[in-house]
Amino acid sequence: MPRRIAEYKSDEKISLSHGAGGRLSLNLITGLFKKNFRNKILNKLEDSAVFRLDGQKVAFTTDSYVIQPIFFPGGDIGKLAVCGTINDLCVMGAKPRALSCSLIIEEGLEQSVLEKIILSMKKTAQKARVQIVTGDTKVVEKGGADKIFINTSGIGTISNEIDLGKEKIRIGDKIIINGTIGDHATAVLSSRESLEFQTRVKSDCAPLSDLIGLILKFKNKIKFMRDPTRGGLASVLNEMVLEKRFGILLFENKIPIKDEVKGLCELLGYDPLYLANEGKVIIVIAPQVAEKALNVLRKNPKGKNAEIIGEITNKFKGLVGLKTKFGGTRLIDMPAGEQFPRIC
Amino acid sequence: MPRRIAEYKSDEKISLSHGAGGRLSLNLITGLFKKNFRNKILNKLEDSAVFRLDGQKVAFTTDSYVIQPIFFPGGDIGKLAVCGTINDLCVMGAKPRALSCSLIIEEGLEQSVLEKIILSMKKTAQKARVQIVTGDTKVVEKGGADKIFINTSGIGTISNEIDLGKEKIRIGDKIIINGTIGDHATAVLSSRESLEFQTRVKSDCAPLSDLIGLILKFKNKIKFMRDPTRGGLASVLNEMVLEKRFGILLFENKIPIKDEVKGLCELLGYDPLYLANEGKVIIVIAPQVAEKALNVLRKNPKGKNAEIIGEITNKFKGLVGLKTKFGGTRLIDMPAGEQFPRIC
Repeated sequence: MPRRIAEYKSDEKISLSHGAGGRLSLNLITGLFKKNFRNKILNKLEDSAVFRLDGQKVAFTTDSYVIQPIFFPGGDIGKLAVCGTINDLCVMGAKPRALSCSLIIEEGLEQSVLEKIILSMKKTAQKARVQIVTGDTKVVEKGGADKIFINTSGIGTISNEIDLGKEKIRIGDKIIINGTIGDHATAVLSSRESLEFQTRVKSDCAPLSDLIGLILKFKNKIKFMRDPTRGGLASVLNEMVLEKRFGILLFENKIPIKDEVKGLCELLGYDPLYLANEGKVIIVIAPQVAEKALNVLRKNPKGKNAEIIGEITNKFKGLVGLKTKFGGTRLIDMPAGEQFPRIC
Repeated sequence: MPRRIAEYKSDEKISLSHGAGGRLSLNLITGLFKKNFRNKILNKLEDSAVFRLDGQKVAFTTDSYVIQPIFFPGGDIGKLAVCGTINDLCVMGAKPRALSCSLIIEEGLEQSVLEKIILSMKKTAQKARVQIVTGDTKVVEKGGADKIFINTSGIGTISNEIDLGKEKIRIGDKIIINGTIGDHATAVLSSRESLEFQTRVKSDCAPLSDLIGLILKFKNKIKFMRDPTRGGLASVLNEMVLEKRFGILLFENKIPIKDEVKGLCELLGYDPLYLANEGKVIIVIAPQVAEKALNVLRKNPKGKNAEIIGEITNKFKGLVGLKTKFGGTRLIDMPAGEQFPRIC
């Protein structure tokens, strides 16, 4: 019997865990949003909605960014907002075509800080060759918000040759990641004043349109893609197999991770599989082309540490297993609650 | 010489007025966002961006809602978020096709409150026959936001027969509004605890897709539409003539306003021309069909109080004049600062 998630309960208060991308987030999404807004497009709960606009297949996505602090090693809230939404379009096989930018600003924010963020958005969008075409600005009184929140929504177009979806996944398909895990969370946490560790690790925050564009040439051999942001690799993979008749086997020794991130995780008791990434993509691909795709990825700077980290298996259903370095297998559960609030 | 707005200065702090839809908002938009993100689509600074996606003309818009209180007579933040974005699409002549919904929730919000808001969004979207197809939820710690902020973005499609824009406006064109002004602001202000007046006025918050759909049959006779939200009628009309070689003459005795709203404005010293509306549209239309359009509007409940309230004139350029009930003419300036924060 495939594992199911717990029920949504309406008599509780919203906690930080409801926004953390784990089990409670999923309860809220399925128990409240999907239940009420239900329609064929939303029900898929993908990173972007995919539908046709008078013939043209489009992807449409939205994300609000509340990261704290707003500047961190390797990025800032503006760069993150542009990258995150571009990546949510790209993992659906879409070419990003237009972004929106909606700001909620706390009264008293220095205009020079806002300008720095806007310039960062501009630079990131230019690099990814996407235009920001519409926007909105709201200001709330001091104490009504925390400095600045940014929503970016995006539209992309999808070629008719691309057809991704969990339903395309087959036993034996390989799972690829384009590089090291946990860099974003590590960089952000290290820049919080309350924490007492320092690191040279930078956030991996980057638009993946070019990298993903390169592997779209494998067309229908690509089954599914997802960017492992909030909740990390563990969340994405668990969502992928939830209520499915297949499972995932990961190989611990194949998962790329920086020594510094690994060391900090051991020191602080974090599991890197649950740490957020902002420049990573998980690709489920047919085994025949997996090695070829790996080589394509490795030629791009954003994919130079790409690895085949696991495969789709029928050994367990609806679950994610990890083959450890010592030869054993342990189950990787979906995170229940909040590890780190405001990581994106 | 057409009037120009003041310069954007980057050495200041963001104030509530920067989000109020008046002169300071415009400074920020032109001096920072337009300057940096500049592209042909954004530069028009319309309520929605309009562009082609592989042949199909589409409208794309975004708005974040921070209204306080979140429940008010005639609506709530959820209804408002759906209506506002639908209306921003409709005033571009678009048929709304899909909405996104992105929530920023303060930790501790009762789930029952969230549920009420979601049900309101559902009901409003259903009424307007638009689907919410994608979403996002973030939770910030207590004190990091004020209960809930909602971003809705939307996509619409525009028929090739519709071509709206300020550049279509000609001397002699008529200006229509579909009903009474100031209802939304009055209802919201009356529900704030700090204010000591009571009113039976309800917000006009409503999706205008059906009403605007009715008058789209006048095709290229419709020159321009805009919904007078933040900053009210005065802001929208001033933006319309800004740096243009024409002006607007309004007829005070034609502007629909409820007695109760008028009375409160006199009592409290507010000018109803600057009060926010959430179910109103300003239509600039060729004089030959203005009366016909008026009759069409009046047959719909949302247009039963429609009036021709003014016309495009060459008597003054870049300015908005009001012919008062007493026969004089006074200039209606763009609001400089914040009258009421968090009205939408």
